[in-house]
Amino acid sequence: MSADWIALDWGTTHLRGWAMSGSGSVLDERTSDAGMGRLTPEDFEPALLDLAGDWIDGPTTAIACGMVGARQGWTEAAYTPVPAEPLGAQLTRAPTTTPGLKVLIVPGMSQKTPPDVMRGEETQIAGFLALNPGWDGILCLPGTHTKWVEVSAGEVVSFQTAMSGDLFAAISGHTVLRHSVGGEEWSDDAFDAALSDAISRPERLASRLFGIRAAGLLSDPAPGAGRATLSGLLIGAELASVRPYWLGRQIAVIGARRLSSLYVRALGKQGAPATIVDADRITLAGLTSAWRNWKGGA
Amino acid sequence: MSADWIALDWGTTHLRGWAMSGSGSVLDERTSDAGMGRLTPEDFEPALLDLAGDWIDGPTTAIACGMVGARQGWTEAAYTPVPAEPLGAQLTRAPTTTPGLKVLIVPGMSQKTPPDVMRGEETQIAGFLALNPGWDGILCLPGTHTKWVEVSAGEVVSFQTAMSGDLFAAISGHTVLRHSVGGEEWSDDAFDAALSDAISRPERLASRLFGIRAAGLLSDPAPGAGRATLSGLLIGAELASVRPYWLGRQIAVIGARRLSSLYVRALGKQGAPATIVDADRITLAGLTSAWRNWKGGA
Repeated sequence: MSADWIALDWGTTHLRGWAMSGSGSVLDERTSDAGMGRLTPEDFEPALLDLAGDWIDGPTTAIACGMVGARQGWTEAAYTPVPAEPLGAQLTRAPTTTPGLKVLIVPGMSQKTPPDVMRGEETQIAGFLALNPGWDGILCLPGTHTKWVEVSAGEVVSFQTAMSGDLFAAISGHTVLRHSVGGEEWSDDAFDAALSDAISRPERLASRLFGIRAAGLLSDPAPGAGRATLSGLLIGAELASVRPYWLGRQIAVIGARRLSSLYVRALGKQGAPATIVDADRITLAGLTSAWRNWKGGA
Repeated sequence: MSADWIALDWGTTHLRGWAMSGSGSVLDERTSDAGMGRLTPEDFEPALLDLAGDWIDGPTTAIACGMVGARQGWTEAAYTPVPAEPLGAQLTRAPTTTPGLKVLIVPGMSQKTPPDVMRGEETQIAGFLALNPGWDGILCLPGTHTKWVEVSAGEVVSFQTAMSGDLFAAISGHTVLRHSVGGEEWSDDAFDAALSDAISRPERLASRLFGIRAAGLLSDPAPGAGRATLSGLLIGAELASVRPYWLGRQIAVIGARRLSSLYVRALGKQGAPATIVDADRITLAGLTSAWRNWKGGA
């Protein structure tokens, strides 16, 4: 089975590939842990052949998005400054030696003030817009580095990154709070209380964090209270910091189901209704748009 | 050489001991890395004998402060609730088998609302008050978990912990910012700017952090700017969260010189002059007070 073209979602920790037909349907799908974080530039082509070598039979184009285009990736795909369409810039060709193989990388986007960058999310945004043509409003893409994106008339107007997921992992794994936030349990009440406190008094965040540890030493908090409190404080601080992005706006949340539902719960508590978008096919829809654009122009 | 008594500063990562004369002068001083973090309860007495066995000749009392009295330490020394004198509670005796050796642990302090705890700092506070009798005001003890302490009439009235040091280490070592804050370089300008921004707009903290990374990708920041910006944001967020502790108060800062001078610089920028106190002898002065109290009552 050979692919007409190959779609690649190539992030820091994982590589996901789809064998695609010319009409845009999925022929096959595979995942590997050959993320950009463990590869040097010369490792990328072999990693792609490991994943998808048997899909390549004759001239084949692969369209890739994500950290594969970072400075430390396969080859740097320079950022497109906003405002711009998410796929508004030319794809960047990566160096290859396999006969017939052409690899094109979707450039990320950058913002000058305040300084910000994204790689990969521009493809998700394009995928969302392909499925929801004419949509205007705010996209929230929760993750390690959550993106808040203002979309209007098919363009990314501005965006803001909050690294709450990265902070949650670092704080819960590498500070004294690791003793207080373990386990899989969860308390909605603790999340809501911490969220409300962080949004209404964001200046108290630095003091509230150690309180999670102290509460665990001095009393007997409900199971999962520490974990939910840390999450509530961080998401609350994030919402406080991006208030202009959600106040009175139409919001769609695109991400992993569990995390997305936390954001929707948090936004709902602020009177900001948000819609969860199934993220599974969004990246592939964006890569398909990129391929169609390129094919149309090629 | 035998000691009349032994003073022990026994924290999570280190053990520091002084051989003391009955008049309170230092006969010898040693340090080891037998911190509480690597010991189980039965390891403490051997660790003490390793450090100071040759100081013990006949009945000898050791006075210890710090994490040695935590639940996971040698034996738990229950917290003294504030308001109280920093050495107001009875010392807790640790179980020993060495003939003539008596080990007494200084209890930490706790606060019910907001929940907070300290262990070790109460001894530094007592040491400061022994050297500055009658002093009223705010003590700031910067470190992994910085303590802000309101002292009045010889008592700890209230206190607040901010874990900025712990956060700095976790964020600079275990998030994407590790790429942006390495090295030993430093920019006072970047520190001041971040500090001012975090104090005046604490609600923006969550968004400002990722900006450190983005600025490094999009421009060419001054050497040390990333590191100083992260420090300024965290100390600024801390100052915003403990404003009632420093606004219009007399402040003394007790801690490592470099970190203390950052706090004094930050407070000075807010129009809050603070005095740096030489921390070297403070803990020993507190342990000496504890020994004198105990001897007077024994």
